[in-house]
Amino acid sequence: MKLIRYGEAGKEKPGIVDTKGAYRDLSKHINDVAGATLGADSLSALQQLDIDSLPEIPADVRLGPCVGNVGKFICIGLNYEDHARETSADIPQEPIIFMKATSAISGPNDPIIRPKNSTKLDWEVELAIVIGESISYADEAQAEKAIAGYCICNDISEREFQLERGGQWDKGKGCDSFGPLGPWLVTKEEIKDVLNLDMTLQVNGKQYQNGSTRTMIFPPAYVVSYISQFMSLQPGDVISTGTPPGVGLGMKPPVWLQPGDNVELQITGLGQQRQVVKDYQETL
Amino acid sequence: MKLIRYGEAGKEKPGIVDTKGAYRDLSKHINDVAGATLGADSLSALQQLDIDSLPEIPADVRLGPCVGNVGKFICIGLNYEDHARETSADIPQEPIIFMKATSAISGPNDPIIRPKNSTKLDWEVELAIVIGESISYADEAQAEKAIAGYCICNDISEREFQLERGGQWDKGKGCDSFGPLGPWLVTKEEIKDVLNLDMTLQVNGKQYQNGSTRTMIFPPAYVVSYISQFMSLQPGDVISTGTPPGVGLGMKPPVWLQPGDNVELQITGLGQQRQVVKDYQETL
Repeated sequence: MKLIRYGEAGKEKPGIVDTKGAYRDLSKHINDVAGATLGADSLSALQQLDIDSLPEIPADVRLGPCVGNVGKFICIGLNYEDHARETSADIPQEPIIFMKATSAISGPNDPIIRPKNSTKLDWEVELAIVIGESISYADEAQAEKAIAGYCICNDISEREFQLERGGQWDKGKGCDSFGPLGPWLVTKEEIKDVLNLDMTLQVNGKQYQNGSTRTMIFPPAYVVSYISQFMSLQPGDVISTGTPPGVGLGMKPPVWLQPGDNVELQITGLGQQRQVVKDYQETL
Repeated sequence: MKLIRYGEAGKEKPGIVDTKGAYRDLSKHINDVAGATLGADSLSALQQLDIDSLPEIPADVRLGPCVGNVGKFICIGLNYEDHARETSADIPQEPIIFMKATSAISGPNDPIIRPKNSTKLDWEVELAIVIGESISYADEAQAEKAIAGYCICNDISEREFQLERGGQWDKGKGCDSFGPLGPWLVTKEEIKDVLNLDMTLQVNGKQYQNGSTRTMIFPPAYVVSYISQFMSLQPGDVISTGTPPGVGLGMKPPVWLQPGDNVELQITGLGQQRQVVKDYQETL
C-alpha cells in the first residue's frame, strides 16, 4: 500500500494510492496515517479494503508529510561509505545517531525554506523508515517486524549551522521545512529488496546524487535494532538512514542551494519529491 | 501558578497546587497542561479561578511530567562556566544545542532506568523553560514573552553512550526515563529573578551539585531567542538550559549512578524531584 496524507498543512486527512495511481480518501477508515494506525493489524485491515471504490481525491491536492504526529525524527549519519569519504569523515564503527526537530517535517513538495543567515544550504536524499510497533532492546528480527514501511526523506541541512556553530549537528538539521517526508508511506511488503533501491537527486535538472541502498553500511533492521538499545521506539517514529554521495558539501567547490532552485529526488518504489527553494523572507 | 499533571503514566490529568500546597484538579477547565493551554490567555483565565475550591487530589498521587505532548525537548550544553571546566570543555562562544528524545520524558519522581550496557550513568540538575507561544526569529523581548514558565529537569546522561559511541551526544541523552520534568510547571510571574535560583542535587544524601542560575552563561530569554533563529518553537516545547558543576563525570575519580541509588534535586521556587535508580531488567 501507498499511504498518503493530503490537504492543508496541519489538517491533513489520510488517503491511499489506488491501482491506477489515483488518490483515494481513507477518512472513513482511519483518523490519520499515524500512531496506532501504523500497526500490523491496522495495516492488514486496510489491505482488505476495495481501494478503487473509495472516494477519489483530485490529483493536484497538496500532499502533507506521509506520517502524522511523529514523536521522534531520528537520523543516521554517514551511513554510506562513499558519502563519509566525500565529507572527509571516518567510516563509522557503529551508527551515528542525531535528531531532527519534528517541527522541521514538511510535505514532499512543500518549499524548502532557506533560513535567515543561511549560506550553506544542502540536500540529502535518504531512505526513511516508519516505525509501526513499540519496541525496546529489539533484535534484528523484532526490529524488522516493527517496521511499518518506508518513504523518501530529504534530510536538508545547513552545513555552517551543523558543522561550524558549536559542535553538535542538530543545530543545522532541524530548521523549519528541513524534513520533507513522502510522497507516500509505502508499506514494507511492497518493497521486495530494501537494499537494492536506486536513489537520485537533481538540482535544476542536473544530477548530483546517484546512489543505491546497496552501499548502505548499516541496513534498516540493524539500524532500528541498534537505536532501540538506546531509546524505545513508538509507532510513527521516523528514522532517516543516511545519504549516498553527491551532496553539495562534497562538490569541489561546494554547491549550495539558492532561492529559486528546483530540487527533485527519487527512490525506486517510493516515488518522487519536488521542492522549490525559498528565502525565509518570502514566507513571512 | 504551579501546574501539575497527575495520575497513571500516559493518562495524566491536569491539576494545580493550591495556596496551602495541596493538589487540586483542573480537568473541568483544561484538557491538559500542554499545547494551547500554555498560552498567555489560557494562563490568565486559570488565574481567575478560585483554586482552593477546586476538587482536591490525594497528596500521594503519582505526578507525571508537568508538561504534556512535548513536541521538542531541546537542551543547551555547557551553559555554566564551571561545568564546562569540570568536563574539560572549552567555554562555548554561542549556545550548544542538542536534543533529548521526547520518549525520555518521565515524571519527577519516577525511577531512573539504567539502560542495558550502561556503565556511566550521570545526573544534571537543570532549569527547564516551557514555551507557551509559537515563535520564530524572536528577539529577546519576544522570546521572554513566549516563555510560559519553568520547571526542574534532571538531564540524565549516559556518558559512554554520549561521548564514546559515535560523536553526537543525542545517543546518551534520550534513553527512556532520562528526562524527569516537574514536579510543577511554575508560571513565570512566580519567579521573580530567574537568574538567581539555587540549584542543588544529592545522591544518597551526599550533595554533589550546589550551584545557581547566577553563573549561567546564556540566560533563558537569550537561549529561546537563539534557538528560534534555527527552528520555530511551539507551545509545549521544553528547553533545558544546562547544568552547574558537580556532575558524576566531573568527580575525580568519576562517580556513576548505580541501581538503588536515591537522587534528589531542588531549584528555588520550582520544588524538588526524588528518583530511585533501577536497572532496566527490573522494569521488564
